[in-house]
Amino acid sequence: MNRLDVAVLGATGAVGQRFIQLLADHPWFRVAEVAASERSAGKTYAEAVRWVLPGAPPPDVAGLTVLPLDAAFRSPIVMSALPGEVAKTLEPELAARGHVVSSNTSSHRMAPDVPLLLPEFNADHIRLIETQRKNRGWTSGALVTMSNCTLVAVVAALAPLMDFGVEKVHVVSMQALSGAGYPGVPSFDIADNVIPYIGGEEDKVETEPKKILGSPNGAGIDHAPMLISASCNRVAVLDGHTVSVSVGFARPPSPETIREAWEHFEGHEMARGLPSAPQRPIFYNPANDRPQPRLDRDAGRGMSTTIGRLRPCALLDVKFIALSHNTIRGAAGGAIFNAELVAAQGYIPGFNPVLATASASA
Amino acid sequence: MNRLDVAVLGATGAVGQRFIQLLADHPWFRVAEVAASERSAGKTYAEAVRWVLPGAPPPDVAGLTVLPLDAAFRSPIVMSALPGEVAKTLEPELAARGHVVSSNTSSHRMAPDVPLLLPEFNADHIRLIETQRKNRGWTSGALVTMSNCTLVAVVAALAPLMDFGVEKVHVVSMQALSGAGYPGVPSFDIADNVIPYIGGEEDKVETEPKKILGSPNGAGIDHAPMLISASCNRVAVLDGHTVSVSVGFARPPSPETIREAWEHFEGHEMARGLPSAPQRPIFYNPANDRPQPRLDRDAGRGMSTTIGRLRPCALLDVKFIALSHNTIRGAAGGAIFNAELVAAQGYIPGFNPVLATASASA
Amino acid sequence: MNRLDVAVLGATGAVGQRFIQLLADHPWFRVAEVAASERSAGKTYAEAVRWVLPGAPPPDVAGLTVLPLDAAFRSPIVMSALPGEVAKTLEPELAARGHVVSSNTSSHRMAPDVPLLLPEFNADHIRLIETQRKNRGWTSGALVTMSNCTLVAVVAALAPLMDFGVEKVHVVSMQALSGAGYPGVPSFDIADNVIPYIGGEEDKVETEPKKILGSPNGAGIDHAPMLISASCNRVAVLDGHTVSVSVGFARPPSPETIREAWEHFEGHEMARGLPSAPQRPIFYNPANDRPQPRLDRDAGRGMSTTIGRLRPCALLDVKFIALSHNTIRGAAGGAIFNAELVAAQGYIPGFNPVLATASASA
Amino acid sequence: MNRLDVAVLGATGAVGQRFIQLLADHPWFRVAEVAASERSAGKTYAEAVRWVLPGAPPPDVAGLTVLPLDAAFRSPIVMSALPGEVAKTLEPELAARGHVVSSNTSSHRMAPDVPLLLPEFNADHIRLIETQRKNRGWTSGALVTMSNCTLVAVVAALAPLMDFGVEKVHVVSMQALSGAGYPGVPSFDIADNVIPYIGGEEDKVETEPKKILGSPNGAGIDHAPMLISASCNRVAVLDGHTVSVSVGFARPPSPETIREAWEHFEGHEMARGLPSAPQRPIFYNPANDRPQPRLDRDAGRGMSTTIGRLRPCALLDVKFIALSHNTIRGAAGGAIFNAELVAAQGYIPGFNPVLATASASA
Repeated sequence: MNRLDVAVLGATGAVGQRFIQLLADHPWFRVAEVAASERSAGKTYAEAVRWVLPGAPPPDVAGLTVLPLDAAFRSPIVMSALPGEVAKTLEPELAARGHVVSSNTSSHRMAPDVPLLLPEFNADHIRLIETQRKNRGWTSGALVTMSNCTLVAVVAALAPLMDFGVEKVHVVSMQALSGAGYPGVPSFDIADNVIPYIGGEEDKVETEPKKILGSPNGAGIDHAPMLISASCNRVAVLDGHTVSVSVGFARPPSPETIREAWEHFEGHEMARGLPSAPQRPIFYNPANDRPQPRLDRDAGRGMSTTIGRLRPCALLDVKFIALSHNTIRGAAGGAIFNAELVAAQGYIPGFNPVLATASASA
Repeated sequence: MNRLDVAVLGATGAVGQRFIQLLADHPWFRVAEVAASERSAGKTYAEAVRWVLPGAPPPDVAGLTVLPLDAAFRSPIVMSALPGEVAKTLEPELAARGHVVSSNTSSHRMAPDVPLLLPEFNADHIRLIETQRKNRGWTSGALVTMSNCTLVAVVAALAPLMDFGVEKVHVVSMQALSGAGYPGVPSFDIADNVIPYIGGEEDKVETEPKKILGSPNGAGIDHAPMLISASCNRVAVLDGHTVSVSVGFARPPSPETIREAWEHFEGHEMARGLPSAPQRPIFYNPANDRPQPRLDRDAGRGMSTTIGRLRPCALLDVKFIALSHNTIRGAAGGAIFNAELVAAQGYIPGFNPVLATASASA
Repeated sequence: MNRLDVAVLGATGAVGQRFIQLLADHPWFRVAEVAASERSAGKTYAEAVRWVLPGAPPPDVAGLTVLPLDAAFRSPIVMSALPGEVAKTLEPELAARGHVVSSNTSSHRMAPDVPLLLPEFNADHIRLIETQRKNRGWTSGALVTMSNCTLVAVVAALAPLMDFGVEKVHVVSMQALSGAGYPGVPSFDIADNVIPYIGGEEDKVETEPKKILGSPNGAGIDHAPMLISASCNRVAVLDGHTVSVSVGFARPPSPETIREAWEHFEGHEMARGLPSAPQRPIFYNPANDRPQPRLDRDAGRGMSTTIGRLRPCALLDVKFIALSHNTIRGAAGGAIFNAELVAAQGYIPGFNPVLATASASA
Repeated sequence: MNRLDVAVLGATGAVGQRFIQLLADHPWFRVAEVAASERSAGKTYAEAVRWVLPGAPPPDVAGLTVLPLDAAFRSPIVMSALPGEVAKTLEPELAARGHVVSSNTSSHRMAPDVPLLLPEFNADHIRLIETQRKNRGWTSGALVTMSNCTLVAVVAALAPLMDFGVEKVHVVSMQALSGAGYPGVPSFDIADNVIPYIGGEEDKVETEPKKILGSPNGAGIDHAPMLISASCNRVAVLDGHTVSVSVGFARPPSPETIREAWEHFEGHEMARGLPSAPQRPIFYNPANDRPQPRLDRDAGRGMSTTIGRLRPCALLDVKFIALSHNTIRGAAGGAIFNAELVAAQGYIPGFNPVLATASASA
C-alpha cells in the first residue's frame, strides 16, 4: 500500500467534512489524522462531528480520535480548513516542521512566495515552492493555498481568454449557504430573502484573480493588470456559487472564438490526469437558462465550471453566467487537487505518483 | 359618495389580485367591475380566483360576476393586468371608447405618445396624454403605462442623480417569484436553485429607463442618453426585486452628495400627496447588509425603494444595492398611482380630487 | 396619559423583538425598560439588537439603554422572554419584589399555583393568582405564564368541544423556524429538508393542554383527563405552526356540530374586548387545502387560530388541520394578552382599564 | 449483448425522466423506445423533454425519436408513467398485445388480479400474473403495478412487524415537491408555506398497504385487516417523503424487538440480488433527529427506507419517523424493480437473468 497519510485540520467544520468525504476513496491519499478545536479533541470523529452531508462519515475516519491542533502530526500532508487566525501562525509552523500544507484558508494566499493555485489554470505557479523553501529555510515542508470559492468560476472563464487582453471584469455573485460554513447563515435570515453582503468577500474576488492569472517571473508572480469590481450576495441555495460576469478586452474576441476557447480548454498540462482533475475543466451549456446551481454544480464530480448565456454587454464587451461548486471545486476538492499537484511534481520525498496510481487501480 | 368606478382587467391573475387588494380601501376609486378570460367569465370573482395572497378577497369584490374581456365596461377607469397579446389591441380600443386605461402591460410602453410613468420621478410625462388624444382622436379616453417591475428600484436610485450626468449603468437583478405571475415558476425548478434567465426582461431593463428618465420636448420624450447593461436572475424570494447596480457619471458626485440626494428626494411635486404616493420615495439604509427583500419590500406600504451599500466601483464610479416591491410599487400599486395622477391632473371629466379626498376622510 | 410601564426581559431575542413590535402602539402598556444578557447591557437597544423583523425597532424603544437582568426595574409589569434557566429563579424573585410577571418561558408553567393562560379558553384560571399570593406571600406581584407555542392551535380546536368528552388527541406538528429563536436553525440544516425532532417539544404538547383545559377547583386546577400523543417536526416556514390533529371523544359530535362549535365560539367572557383579544378566536376555512401558514398565520392580527379539513378519522373520530402564529399568538402576543387579563381583573393596584382605554382612544 | 428492450411511456414527465436516468446503466434492460403525448411525438427526446434532473439526458436516449402513445411498440417490457386516464385503457391493451407492463400509475393497482408489488415485502404476489393471464386470456403479456409513493416507507416499517398483529396505523406525511410531477406545485404556493392537502393521496395511503401486506390465497390476495388513518401534507422539499407513524399491535413487541426486526430484515428472498434491490431494505438511524429527507433519501441508492425516533405512543403502542425517496423507490426505481422480478421469475420468454447478469459484468 502506497498511499500518503494526510492530516485534516479543522476536520469537523463544513469544509473539513468535505475533505473527509472526498478523500474517502482517494487513490494517493488516506486520512490518517483529524484535528479540531479543543471542544472536539479527545472524542472520536463520529462523536465530535455534526455531520451535515448526506449519509454518515466514512467508517475508517469515524473511529479516529480527534487530535488537538497543537499535536505533533505524523502525516506528510496536512489539509487545512482552519479559521484564519489560527492558520496565520500554525500553517507556516507546520511547513517549517516538514509538512506539505495545502490550505483552504485566506491567511497566506497573497504572500509573494506562496502559490495560490487552481491547477488547471496556473499549475506552473507551483514553482514558487522553491522560492518559498529558500526564503523560509524550509526543506521538505511547503505551503500552498486554495483561492476564495467565489472566484473559481470567474478565473475558469477568464483563463482561456487571457490572450485577448482581459482588462475589466464586473462580477455579481449569488452564493450558496455552504460558503458560510456551519452553522453559518441562520435560516430565519435567508428564508424568502437575499442577503446582499458577505463580509470580506468582495475584496477577495477583486484581488486574488490577479495573482492566480498572473505570470511567474522566476522568484514571484507578476499580477495580471485587470480591474475587477465585485458585488457578493447570499441566496437560498445549498451548494454552488453563481456569478454574473461582464468582461472588457483589449482585443475583443468574437463570441464564437470565446465559446471555442472555453470548449477546447484542457487545462494546464501539469494538471491533466491528476486524480481530482476534471476531464473537462469547463462546460459551455447552450440552453438559455443555464448554468443553474442545483443542476450544474456536480458537473465533473463537482470540479468543473459550467458557463452559459454568453452575449454582448452594453458597457463592456461580453457578459455571461458561470458556476462552480463552492465546497468541492472551491474549497476541499481544490485543496486536494493542489496537494496532488505538489505530490506529482516531486515535492514530497519518496512519493512516486506512477506507482501510487498503479497500486490504487490494482 | 364620490369614488370613481374602476374595472380591473385580468383580475384573477397575480397582479390582478394585487389590484383588488390595494383598491380595497382606496379613497378615490372603487372596484366596480372585474374581467378575465373566458374560463372565468360568468363565475363570481370568489369562484373564479385562486387567491394567492394572505386572507381572502374583499367581500364586496368576491361577489362580483366576472365579465368577459370584450364586455362593454361602464367604469371610467380601467386597470389592465392583461397578457401582452390581448393588451395590444384591447387597451387602445378601450381608450378610444373613452376609458382612462392604466396599464401594467408592456405592449404600449415604448409608443412615443404613451406616457411611461413612475410619478415620483416623471409625473410631468403625463402631458403626453394631450399629444395622444390629438394623435389618436381620443376625447375622454387615455392610455398610461406602468414600467417593468425590475427597473423601478434602478430608476428610483438614478432619478435624484441625473444632474451629475448618468452615463453608464450596470444592473444585475435577483428577482422574486411573484414577478413570473401565477402559477409562474414551478417549485421544482427554483428550490435550492437560481435561474439566471427571465425571458424578455433584460431588454426592458436596458430600454425603458431611458424613456422614463427622459425629458418632455412638447410632443414627445427625448430619451436619456445613458447606456444600460442588465442581467436578470430569478431567486427563491416571494416578493421584492433586488438589484445590484454600478453607475458611471459624467461629473461623479461624492458619496455624501449621493446619499443626501437620495435622502432628501421628495418626488415630483405633481405626485406628492396622491393617495398611493409614499411619504418618502427613497430610504437609504446604512446597515452593511441591507436592503433585503423580506425586511425592506414593505417600506412605505410597498411603494418606497430602499437603497444601501453605496461604495466605490472599481470599474464605474459607484455601486449600491436597491430594492422595491415588484407587485406593489412595480405593478399594481404603480398602475393605481398612475391612475391617481391622471385623475388629479384633471384628465377625468367631473372628478374633483379635493372633494373625493374630503369625502373619503369624512 | 394612563399607560402602564412595562419592562421587557430578553428583549433582544426573537420573542423579545415581537414583544417590542406588538407593544409599539398598545393602548394600555408602553415599553419603559428593556433588559438582556450582559453582552447587550449598557448599549442602546438599537445597538444591541440584531432586528430580524421587517423594518426597524420603534424609535422610542431604539434609544432605551439595555439594562442588565439583575437591574432594579421600576415597571409594574415585566414581560419575560428569558431563557429557562434564568427564568427559573428570576421570575419568582421579580414577583416577590411586586412585579406582575407575564412569562413566555416554560420554567413555571406546570407549577400548581401558577396560571397557564390562554385567555379565550381559560381566563378564569387567573384566580390562581390569589392562591399564589397566599402561598408565596406575594402582595402586588404575580406570575402568569404563556403556554408552549405549538399547542395553541390544538387547545383552540379542543376548547369548544370539551363538553363532548375529549379523550384522545393525536398531534403531528409542522413548526416554523421562528419557534427556534434566533439564530435558531442553521439554514444549511433546513434547506430542502424537514427535521423530525424538536428538543423537549413533544413532552410540552402532551402535558400543558391538560392543565390549560382543566377545571379550577378553588385552590388549583384539576387537569383534563385526556391522552395526548405528539410528534413535532421543523419545516422551512418562517412563522406559523401547523398541526395535523385526530381526536377521539366519549360522545362523538357530528361534523356539523363541531364546525358550529368552532364558528360560534366567542372566547371566555373575561377575555372579550381586551386589547389583544381577536374578534374571532377561531376561523374555520372550508377550502380543501387550508389552513396554510403563509396565508393564514396573520388572521386576527396573528391572534386567531384557523382550522380546516375537518373529516372522519379511521382510528379516532375526526381529524383536521389547525394553525396559529407561533411568535404572536403563541408567544409575545399571548403573553401580552395574559398581562391585559391580569390588569383588567384588578390585580394591578391603581390601574383602571376603562380609563386607560378611553385615554388611548382620545 | 443480452439486454431486454424497454419502452418508457410518459417519458418526458418527472417520473419518466427518473426511468430514463435509472435505466441508463441497467444490467438487464436498455431503453429502446420512448413515448409521450402528441405534443412531444416526432421530436427527439432531447428536444421534447424539459430535463429537470441534474446534468443532461443520457446521450443514447437523447437521440431517440419520441413515439406517440398509440405506436406499435417492439420492446417486450413497457414502463408506464402514464396519466391515470390514459393508463386505464392503454396498459391492459399493451399487456394483451404481449408486453410486460410495469406501471407506476394508480389505475389498476387495486384490481384483484393485478399484483401491487414492493418486492422486498411481497415478491410472492407476483404469482397473481398466472391468475391474470388466465382471467384475461393474456399469454406473454402481464400487468404489474407499483404502489403510491408515500406509503412505501410505511409498508417498509410494517412488513417486518406483521407477525405482531398490526391493527392500527396512523400516518401523517410531509411530502416532497417531486411527488406532484412537473410543473407540479407553483413556487409561489409553497415558498414559506405548507400545503396540508394532496388530492386523492390519503385514500391511497389508507387502502393500498392492506393489499400489499395481504396474503396470497391462490387466486387473489386476502387484504391485511389493519385500520389506517392518513393525513398528507406538501412541504418545500425536492425529493423524499417523510412519514410520522403511530402503530397499535395485537401483541405489542418491545422496542428492542422492533429495532431488531428492522435491522435484520433482508427482504423477501425472491427479491434479493435483483439489480435494483438495495442491500438493506431498511436502515434504522439511532440519532434523535433522523431520518431527514435531504440526508437520507439516497440511502441504498434511493431504494432503502430509513427509520428513526422509535418511541412509545400515548395512544397506540409505538411511534416513529420513516422516509424513502419518492421518485426512486416510490416510483421509477420501484417499477424497474418490479420488472426485474417479473423477468427473474421467468415471465418473459427467452430471458435468462443469470446470463444477462454475467454478460453485463463481463
